[in-house]
Amino acid sequence: MTERLDAQFAFLREADKLKSILRASCLIDGSRHENSAEHSWHIMLYALVLSEQAAPGVDINRVLKMLLIHDIVEIDAGDAPIHGNVDHAAMAAKEAAAADRLFRLLPSDQAESFRALWGEFEAAESPDAIHAKSIDRLQTPIANLVTGGGSWKDYDVTLEQLEARVGVPVKRGLPKVWAWLLPKLQTFFAARERG
Amino acid sequence: MTERLDAQFAFLREADKLKSILRASCLIDGSRHENSAEHSWHIMLYALVLSEQAAPGVDINRVLKMLLIHDIVEIDAGDAPIHGNVDHAAMAAKEAAAADRLFRLLPSDQAESFRALWGEFEAAESPDAIHAKSIDRLQTPIANLVTGGGSWKDYDVTLEQLEARVGVPVKRGLPKVWAWLLPKLQTFFAARERG
Ligand SMILES: [Ca+2]
Repeated sequence: MTERLDAQFAFLREADKLKSILRASCLIDGSRHENSAEHSWHIMLYALVLSEQAAPGVDINRVLKMLLIHDIVEIDAGDAPIHGNVDHAAMAAKEAAAADRLFRLLPSDQAESFRALWGEFEAAESPDAIHAKSIDRLQTPIANLVTGGGSWKDYDVTLEQLEARVGVPVKRGLPKVWAWLLPKLQTFFAARERG
Repeated sequence: MTERLDAQFAFLREADKLKSILRASCLIDGSRHENSAEHSWHIMLYALVLSEQAAPGVDINRVLKMLLIHDIVEIDAGDAPIHGNVDHAAMAAKEAAAADRLFRLLPSDQAESFRALWGEFEAAESPDAIHAKSIDRLQTPIANLVTGGGSWKDYDVTLEQLEARVGVPVKRGLPKVWAWLLPKLQTFFAARERG
């Protein structure tokens, strides 16, 4: 019993470090870069508010748990900016090693179930994972639209890149939300080209 | 449809401000104060890891949702440090007004259900709310123990105060965790008195 709680609190303490992992995106007020812990909170709120958009068969409670743990690997592997030049195979190996080390701080039954849930999210094949990935991809474009470009400017992102890297996963899980978002993106990028 | 998404995204944008509400407690590495958004993420992780400690009848999925939205009122009302000198009636009124304004950004059916879930958490009477409150009270003492006192030093907290303000709610929802934590607190405060 005591040993089990010791292990659980060792993991919970280590997880505190996610609050110091910075992402490419900024807060909407532009005051600073966003960290991965508060990002995880925010996309869980996205998932809750937009749960009516989930495809039949999606279990929002499992989606919330996936989103809760999905970024913990960044404590060891760092955040890979979606529009950065990333070696995807190397990053995947780094994240798998991170998942092994971090989730193994937990008692072994929990280590296994957390690792499996994280693996399911990464594979993006199950209905829950497809939905969770859509939600995860949605927050940054929304923030960038409100802030006049945000991390799109830092990475020189085009509408074509956005449609490929954000549009494809968002459309898979949240087609109506993508239909709502796309005209706003088109207006923004058209104005930027003129401007 | 479009109007509904407009309202949902207005709420999700406004929620970004929770990332700028600072708490009395610091990150475990001592680098800065913690904000309420990343705190909310962290206590959801506590809830998931410690879900086996929940009393029979507690629905962890509802607890997670409560914890996800419980601090949003702080966007208007600010964080009331647990060991600070707070006018509780005035704070409750401020938070109720905040809940009205913030949740009403959502479509009315969601405004109502979010408001009700927040009210249930605040009332701390249902099994889910009792459990959620225990989890919420647990993170700061754990962080303070690891960092050699943390916000206990800023507020001159005694073990007696801790037992009243943290021990009582933690014991209600998580008696075994409190039994694990109390000796550590006793050792810490005994050393401080000697020291
Ligand atoms: Ca709180």
